[in-house]
Amino acid sequence: MSNWGEAAFNPRSIALVGASGQSGKLGYILMKNLQDGYPGHLYPINPKEVEIMGYRAYPRIQDAPDAVDLAVVALPPESCVQAMRDCAEAGVNVALVLSGGFAEVGAEGAARQQAMLEIAQQGGVRLIGPNCFGLYNCNLGLNASMGLGLPPKGGNISLVTQSGAYGMAIFGLARQRHLRFAKILSHGNKADLSDHEILDYLADDDETNVICLFLESVSHGRAFFEALARAAQRKPVVVAKTGRSSAGQRAAASHTAALTGDATAFITAVRQAGAILAESGLEMVDIAEALSRQPIPAGRRVGIITNSGGTGVELTDLCERFGLRVPELSSPVQAKITPLLPTYASPRNPVDVTPLWARFPAMYGGSIEAMYESDDVDIIIPILLQRSALMHENVETVRDTVLRYQRERGIAKPTYICWVVGNEGEQTQAMLQDAGIPVYEWPERTARTAAAVATYAEMRRARAAFPIGQETPPAGAYQTALSLLAAVQTQGRTILLENEVKQLLAAYGARIPRETLCSSSDKAMAVAQTFGTACVLKIVSPDISHKSDVGGVRVGIAPDQVGTVFEAILATVRAKQPSAHILGISVQEMVRGQETIIGGLRDAEFGPLVMFGLGGVFVEVLHDIAYRLVPASTGELQAMLREVRGYPLLTGVRGQPAVDQNSLIMTLRAVAWLLDAFPQISELDLNPVIVSAEGAVVADGRAILSLS
Amino acid sequence: MSNWGEAAFNPRSIALVGASGQSGKLGYILMKNLQDGYPGHLYPINPKEVEIMGYRAYPRIQDAPDAVDLAVVALPPESCVQAMRDCAEAGVNVALVLSGGFAEVGAEGAARQQAMLEIAQQGGVRLIGPNCFGLYNCNLGLNASMGLGLPPKGGNISLVTQSGAYGMAIFGLARQRHLRFAKILSHGNKADLSDHEILDYLADDDETNVICLFLESVSHGRAFFEALARAAQRKPVVVAKTGRSSAGQRAAASHTAALTGDATAFITAVRQAGAILAESGLEMVDIAEALSRQPIPAGRRVGIITNSGGTGVELTDLCERFGLRVPELSSPVQAKITPLLPTYASPRNPVDVTPLWARFPAMYGGSIEAMYESDDVDIIIPILLQRSALMHENVETVRDTVLRYQRERGIAKPTYICWVVGNEGEQTQAMLQDAGIPVYEWPERTARTAAAVATYAEMRRARAAFPIGQETPPAGAYQTALSLLAAVQTQGRTILLENEVKQLLAAYGARIPRETLCSSSDKAMAVAQTFGTACVLKIVSPDISHKSDVGGVRVGIAPDQVGTVFEAILATVRAKQPSAHILGISVQEMVRGQETIIGGLRDAEFGPLVMFGLGGVFVEVLHDIAYRLVPASTGELQAMLREVRGYPLLTGVRGQPAVDQNSLIMTLRAVAWLLDAFPQISELDLNPVIVSAEGAVVADGRAILSLS
Repeated sequence: MSNWGEAAFNPRSIALVGASGQSGKLGYILMKNLQDGYPGHLYPINPKEVEIMGYRAYPRIQDAPDAVDLAVVALPPESCVQAMRDCAEAGVNVALVLSGGFAEVGAEGAARQQAMLEIAQQGGVRLIGPNCFGLYNCNLGLNASMGLGLPPKGGNISLVTQSGAYGMAIFGLARQRHLRFAKILSHGNKADLSDHEILDYLADDDETNVICLFLESVSHGRAFFEALARAAQRKPVVVAKTGRSSAGQRAAASHTAALTGDATAFITAVRQAGAILAESGLEMVDIAEALSRQPIPAGRRVGIITNSGGTGVELTDLCERFGLRVPELSSPVQAKITPLLPTYASPRNPVDVTPLWARFPAMYGGSIEAMYESDDVDIIIPILLQRSALMHENVETVRDTVLRYQRERGIAKPTYICWVVGNEGEQTQAMLQDAGIPVYEWPERTARTAAAVATYAEMRRARAAFPIGQETPPAGAYQTALSLLAAVQTQGRTILLENEVKQLLAAYGARIPRETLCSSSDKAMAVAQTFGTACVLKIVSPDISHKSDVGGVRVGIAPDQVGTVFEAILATVRAKQPSAHILGISVQEMVRGQETIIGGLRDAEFGPLVMFGLGGVFVEVLHDIAYRLVPASTGELQAMLREVRGYPLLTGVRGQPAVDQNSLIMTLRAVAWLLDAFPQISELDLNPVIVSAEGAVVADGRAILSLS
Repeated sequence: MSNWGEAAFNPRSIALVGASGQSGKLGYILMKNLQDGYPGHLYPINPKEVEIMGYRAYPRIQDAPDAVDLAVVALPPESCVQAMRDCAEAGVNVALVLSGGFAEVGAEGAARQQAMLEIAQQGGVRLIGPNCFGLYNCNLGLNASMGLGLPPKGGNISLVTQSGAYGMAIFGLARQRHLRFAKILSHGNKADLSDHEILDYLADDDETNVICLFLESVSHGRAFFEALARAAQRKPVVVAKTGRSSAGQRAAASHTAALTGDATAFITAVRQAGAILAESGLEMVDIAEALSRQPIPAGRRVGIITNSGGTGVELTDLCERFGLRVPELSSPVQAKITPLLPTYASPRNPVDVTPLWARFPAMYGGSIEAMYESDDVDIIIPILLQRSALMHENVETVRDTVLRYQRERGIAKPTYICWVVGNEGEQTQAMLQDAGIPVYEWPERTARTAAAVATYAEMRRARAAFPIGQETPPAGAYQTALSLLAAVQTQGRTILLENEVKQLLAAYGARIPRETLCSSSDKAMAVAQTFGTACVLKIVSPDISHKSDVGGVRVGIAPDQVGTVFEAILATVRAKQPSAHILGISVQEMVRGQETIIGGLRDAEFGPLVMFGLGGVFVEVLHDIAYRLVPASTGELQAMLREVRGYPLLTGVRGQPAVDQNSLIMTLRAVAWLLDAFPQISELDLNPVIVSAEGAVVADGRAILSLS
């Protein structure tokens, strides 16, 4: 699998197809870029030249004197198909096709792309692109892209960007902030090489510590999710994806060659994989900078030092709004800081050093020291505003204090600078950035980034504490369900009866109410007596899927009323739907507690998902629903419950006792197992599942099978 | 009232108390600043000098040859009290005290501030500050602040900032963006001159088109709200306030000399006044820039032009996330744009011109033209990314096209630029900014600002359509309520009985259920028969405020069961609370519908507020509550209902008919009237108010009176 990766990022030899010595042409820019830093063999391919920039040129790629690892193709689109034939014939490993004019420009282009792809696949050539910006391996000195110049070595962030132009703008921004990259790849139309393969390569790549992924579409959703989860276990992955709103999806569809998929499934996949979802390209870079340069925090407590009280308060507000905490410092820590400050200044947090600039270095340095040495805070944010940012001596002190504690004393407490000064601060800013201390402009971005990193750190700790090991379904469950589904399918039905759904769930360990199908009111009365509780009566007919609509459901019936109600239901249903074949009436014990809804569905791109929500207004009015891809660990299922806004209802509010959450998780797990084991189940809808301190009970359910 | 304003911003003469000719001293910087552009008389005050920078110096302010409008005081804090005596004696109108060392540094400073204030008040001197940065009147050339240099003339934004350092950073940022200001005032500790007076002055000021307010605390909350509402009727006011989270409030309390007040009441006040709430200082500037330079939009529809498909999709997503819409362009508009683009480009919206840079000017210009001439969009956002931003000819075309339509053709369609390029774009950026076209970096800030402006525009239109005229309370309501409250107070009670609360509400026009206080089960049976509905029975006792806790409430009782239940309640309550004096049992008709909660409370700073929420989980679990200050227009009360997340429950979901919203509004209005008329009512809690298609009924209520 990493054959393509080594050939693309560490090629022993490169053929540039469409090389040119004429300045201004793309083939010239690429020659320059490769010549600048690439240490391997470079073969310009151009039938009209014998030498380009001091390199011998060859008419065709097959004429190169040696095996070619990577072919960089920059030809008019019409010529690319033949170039791919040549690549195949020459045994090239990877062809990076920069040229546009393929699937993104309509049907003719799509046909051209397909022809090129088929030749590549038959010839064993991996295709990157077409319609892409190219790639970099910064540490090797390799720039096989349209971008001018060679980025500095020594970086550890790798960037994968589907959008060429925006990706390069992101890259430009990052360089302006003195960020360094390991590898950069723009893969454009993604005709062949896909996100999941790139993720697998970068997960293994020792030079990459943080992966940034800027996507417009996802293909092979399931493989993407799995590769993302593998990569995220090893290093932070920050993902931004455009085309998430419906207008954005329309826009993306007319811009890229791929559909963008469903945002819900995508967002679920990214979170469940343990990656970080960024809301924009800019936020992606902000978070990647924090993760690549600073340790991850042990908690959410922020210590702030400021020379502007107002800015300190604003940053405090924003930190709290994004879920961080700005606690008052403990007395011993305040006691260390107080002697450094003028008497009227505050050491409480934010530490407000006041505008007393002559003492900035001592006050900033000492406060940072005290915070490093205390256990009061997990993240340190010095605000450098105007004079404190422009004063070399102060910025040096801040930098050196941080480095002393992080590098010499090994204290993993991240420090980010909140920077409030105009362009005149470029020089002092660079002093911090070059030392690996991230600088964010103005309070909002600083707080947002710190919060994203703290949330990531917390998620990692929570995952480490998740119950390990997938539980296995009860013995015989699969066989029971298989027979039941086979029977239904034999009857040509695609909708399961309520009791069939309950049997499926019961087989997989979920609890269902006691219930009996009764064909007479006498039987019903007798059954109700054995339950000894209020009952629910429901009509049972393969012809009736919405039982309430025909008066087929009555709840809260006392046992001695069951016979009367039985007859009443029969009469009503027969009047409303005379042609229905009625199998009887199901008499069920009535269960009391909190209503919840548990469901299962399938996304075309990402496969099966389970969903959870509270009943009533929560799902219907507030759309307060949690999703997970299947399979999901028990920890993920637990997290689903906590994710909904109505979660307090499960822990006991309004005088109610806490419900049995484990029992809900068992029901979710049963749904997940069913979706996983039986691809023919296209939809499962358990509504309601009633949960109380005594457990969760599936009180009603529907299921739809796909025709297959 | 504007005496102080003219004296401060347009003084005929200024005395600089503490003037100095020694470079580096604050008195020197101030001299330089005043000398630079101020056209009036300048009198340096310094007992040790006879001349400073060519101006004759005077030992005391009383020695100045002429009346002094504005005294700028820059002395050590110890000397400020005497300086204020001199100001009073000399008949100075306004004293601007820049010096720190007052209430912000503890008790001693607070005493000093109080002494200075008393002298000022007795002497008829208005005091600005102390502990502040100063003020500017840019168009006059007046810089009476610590900031170096004179800002350019011709601006129309005025900035009021409590925080000196952060305010000046905001000012610096704005200048970097080529924004121009009219007036700037930092008022620090606000010992005398308050926000509401400044608002009144700036509302009247013809040179101010947009007011920015950056606050750390609010004093005189009610006066602030009223002045804000007056100002916001005349021009946009953008407000940012720090110290809104509880940690932020703690931080602000240790930093400024004032407490910060309750965030809920403050936020309610800003919105209800029709001002714009910004989440940070940076956002305040972004919004002010859009409002001061561009017209306000007629709707929420955005047209986007881009040279990067990916960036276009990201901006589309963000616009939709912040509540804007990015509709597909109509066929005629697409037909105008299509011929300009390469065949594979998209004219749908975003218009994606592709990287075909040679045609940028024609494609950008033509697309902007087509959008101006169409009715498809209300806001136009060209994305200028890398090459399209750096290409002079293209930026010129964008600028000139916008100016042509806005200035020559008078089309009020705002245009904002989304700017994605590094520092190398400064020159072309300035071309746009100097022409009054705002430039925002990266998609997120652009979308956020456009959304804030669209929301503001919509709010203004909604207010214009609000029902005019305050309705008046029913005849006799005041007298009825007054007698009732007097009777309660005579009895020495502070908690009203349920039926007393209902009588108050009924007097002010709210509906209450039929109910009768019954002293026997026979009476109760008879009453229930007359109702002919299910009943609610509630114990009535001045000693029992939580009736349910002692078994004193039963609901849904059939009329023929009322006698039995009456006796059962009596027995239970007597057993649980034998000492309670029982007045009887109230038999009420049972009303069915959606539960809501309506309340009234008083904020120490802002006065009375009404609140509204849906019953059950909405208030208790989701904290989904709307507030308004009293008095509130009918339009505001209508808006309260729409503001809660559960609003769909009032319009009819889940098979329920829509409720009678007017009836809820009448109940809210009754609460508002009561709070307004009777300051002794400190809390009103109507829970539940049951609403259905038949109207809203106050089913239960509590009220607390203040001891006075």
